[in-house]
Amino acid sequence: MALEAWLSLLQAAQQITTQAWLHALKRCGSAEALVAAPRRTLLETGLAPDAVAALDEPDRDTAARWRAWLAAPNRKLVTFGSREYPQRLAEIPDAPLALWVEGAKLELLWAPQLAIVGSRSPTADGKETAEQFARYLAQRGLAITSGLATGIDGASHRGAVAALGGTIAVLGGGLDAIFPREHTKLAAEIAARGLLVSEYAPGVEPQKLFFPQRNRIIAGLTLGTLVVEATRRSGSLITARLALDYGREVFAIPGSIHNPLARGCHYLIRQGAKLVEEAADVLVELAPLLTAEGFELAPEPIAETAEESPATRDPSYEKLLNVLGFSPTPIADLSSRTSLTTAELSSMLLLLELEGLVEALPGGRYSRRGKKN
Amino acid sequence: MALEAWLSLLQAAQQITTQAWLHALKRCGSAEALVAAPRRTLLETGLAPDAVAALDEPDRDTAARWRAWLAAPNRKLVTFGSREYPQRLAEIPDAPLALWVEGAKLELLWAPQLAIVGSRSPTADGKETAEQFARYLAQRGLAITSGLATGIDGASHRGAVAALGGTIAVLGGGLDAIFPREHTKLAAEIAARGLLVSEYAPGVEPQKLFFPQRNRIIAGLTLGTLVVEATRRSGSLITARLALDYGREVFAIPGSIHNPLARGCHYLIRQGAKLVEEAADVLVELAPLLTAEGFELAPEPIAETAEESPATRDPSYEKLLNVLGFSPTPIADLSSRTSLTTAELSSMLLLLELEGLVEALPGGRYSRRGKKN
Repeated sequence: MALEAWLSLLQAAQQITTQAWLHALKRCGSAEALVAAPRRTLLETGLAPDAVAALDEPDRDTAARWRAWLAAPNRKLVTFGSREYPQRLAEIPDAPLALWVEGAKLELLWAPQLAIVGSRSPTADGKETAEQFARYLAQRGLAITSGLATGIDGASHRGAVAALGGTIAVLGGGLDAIFPREHTKLAAEIAARGLLVSEYAPGVEPQKLFFPQRNRIIAGLTLGTLVVEATRRSGSLITARLALDYGREVFAIPGSIHNPLARGCHYLIRQGAKLVEEAADVLVELAPLLTAEGFELAPEPIAETAEESPATRDPSYEKLLNVLGFSPTPIADLSSRTSLTTAELSSMLLLLELEGLVEALPGGRYSRRGKKN
Repeated sequence: MALEAWLSLLQAAQQITTQAWLHALKRCGSAEALVAAPRRTLLETGLAPDAVAALDEPDRDTAARWRAWLAAPNRKLVTFGSREYPQRLAEIPDAPLALWVEGAKLELLWAPQLAIVGSRSPTADGKETAEQFARYLAQRGLAITSGLATGIDGASHRGAVAALGGTIAVLGGGLDAIFPREHTKLAAEIAARGLLVSEYAPGVEPQKLFFPQRNRIIAGLTLGTLVVEATRRSGSLITARLALDYGREVFAIPGSIHNPLARGCHYLIRQGAKLVEEAADVLVELAPLLTAEGFELAPEPIAETAEESPATRDPSYEKLLNVLGFSPTPIADLSSRTSLTTAELSSMLLLLELEGLVEALPGGRYSRRGKKN
C-alpha cells in the first residue's frame, strides 16, 4: 500500500530530504517500488548502506502515530510524484520527499503564491508594510506564503487573513508543534482559512537548523519572494537567494541607509532584486507569469473609503492641504500661501499630523503624507 | 585676437549654446576663423540668418564689461577647443561654447569629479548624508561638483570644503549674481578653495529655465552623479538622466518608501542607477574608471574597525571555518572533519556564503574567501 511505503520511506530518510533519496525515488518511480527494490539497486543510486538498511526496520509505533495524526480532518500527506504535489515545488533540485499539510484549502498549494518574509524584529513601520502588502495582494488573488515567525512573517499571514485571502505557513518542525508559541492562535486561523505545511513529520520538534531548510520550501512553492525588512544576516536572505537559484522573482523594499533592517534588502537590490515601493509594483512584475498560467487577478479592491476626517471637511483645512506639497515646506511659506497666521497653522498642522495626513519635519517644516492603502 | 573673436561669438550666440553654433565652431576650427568666415559658409552650417548677422554687430559696452570682469584675479574664459576646456565635457553632444570660471583651482576642471545633487528641501538626514559623503569622497581625492542650490547641493559643497577638498559649483546665471543669495558666503569659500563655473556671462541674471541647461554641465563634467534625496519631479533627475545619456555612472541613495524624497532615488535605481549605502560604495564602482585614467585615490581617512560577524563567534561556525581551507573541499570531507551532519553543514555554509566568508563552488565544494577590506 502506497501510504505504508511512504511511512517507511520517510522514517528511513529521517525527515531529511537528501538528493540521494530524491534520486532513488525518481529512479524507482514510486515509494512502493523503492521499498520493494533490491537493496543493491538502491545502493547503486547513491544511498548509504545505513539508510538502505533503515528501510527494513520501520518503527511501528511511529507509523501508527503518523497514521493517527493523518486520520483527523483536513490533514494529508502530499507525496512527491502525486498529483497533489505542487508542480513548482517539484521543479527545485532539492524538493522535499513529502509535505505534511493541515488546513481547509489544500488547493492553495497549486495557487499562484507570493512569499513575504523578513526580520523577526522589524520596525513598526516594516510590520505595517508587510501587513498592508499582504492584504492588498491577497485581495487581488495571490496566496501569501511565509514562515509563521514573529515579525514580518506573522504580519504577512495576518494581512492575508484580514483580506479573507489565502495564506500558507511553512513550518520548521512538525505541525503539532507550533512555533513560536505566541502564534498558536494565528496558526489555527491559518488552518481554518489556508494551509499549514511542513516537511517534518508530526512529533518532530522545531530546530534552529531546520529553518534554513524550511526556507527552500517557501522559495520553491512561490512565484517570487518579497523581503520587507532584513539585516544582512537574516534568514530571509537565504529564502531570497534560493528563490534566485530556482529562477523565481525576488522583490525587496528599500529603507533608510541608517536602518540596519534595510541592509539586507539593499543587498538584494544590488544583486538584482526588484525594488518595490507599492504592493501593485509586485503585480506589475508578476503579470507576465500569471498571464502565462492563465490566472486572472481579482479587480482592484475598492479604495477603503478613507474615513473622511472631520478636519478635511473644514474649508480652511482643505485649503491648507491643497497648498501643502509632499516636500517639506516651512510654516512661513504656508502662511503666505493661505493667509492663515502661524499660530492658526500650528494647531491645524498638529491635528493633521495626528490624523496621519501631514508629517512634521525638522526645521519647522511640514509635508503631506502619502495615502495609505 | 582670439578673445575678441570669442566675445563676439558669445554675444551673437546670446549665451545660448545651440547645436548649430557648436557645429559651426567645430567646422571652422576656432572662434577667429568662425568670425572671419564668409557669411554664406556659416549659413550653410545651419545657423539662422539673424544669428549670423549678430556676429557683425558686437556690442562694445558688453564686451568691455566682460573684459573688465575677466581682468580681476582668478577669473578666466575657458573656451571650447582650448587646452583648458575639460575633455569629458567636450564629449557631450551639447557641450557649452565656453565656461566663465572663477576660483583658486582651475585644474579642478580636469580632475576626476563626482556630482552630488538632490532636493532643495531635503530632510535633515538627507542633508547630513550629502555632507558626509562629500567630505569622505573629497578626502579620497574626488572633486565634488554641484549646483550651489539650497539643500543637498549646498550640503555637498560644504562637505567638500570641510574636508579641505576640491569642489566646483556650476551656476545657472552669471558668476557676479550668486543665487540663492544665502549662499553668497559659501560661493566665496568655494572660489577660495575650488571653482565657480557658468556658461552664462557676467551680468546674466539666473533664470528658472537656465537650471536644467546648467544641469547638463554638471553631468558632463563628472564621472558620475550621486542623487541623495529627490522627489519624482526633482531637477536632480534631469541631471541623472543626462549623466546616463552621456554614459556616466548614476548613483542613488535609497530611503523609506514613505519618504516622498526617496521616490526619485528609487525611480533611478529601478532604471539601473547603482544603489549606494556608504560613500565607499561609490569608489568601488568608479575604481576601474579612475585606474584607467591613472588616478590614485588618497588613503582611507579613518581605519574602519572590521565588524566581526556574529556567526563566526558561534563555536560550531568557528570550527567549520577552521577546518575549511582556501581550496575547494567537498561537503563530505567537512562532515568528517567536524562531525556535523551534511544537513547541518548545508545551512551553515549557506549562511557563511551570504556573509561573504565562504564560496560555493561547482560540484558541491566549498572554500573560504579572502578577507574583505
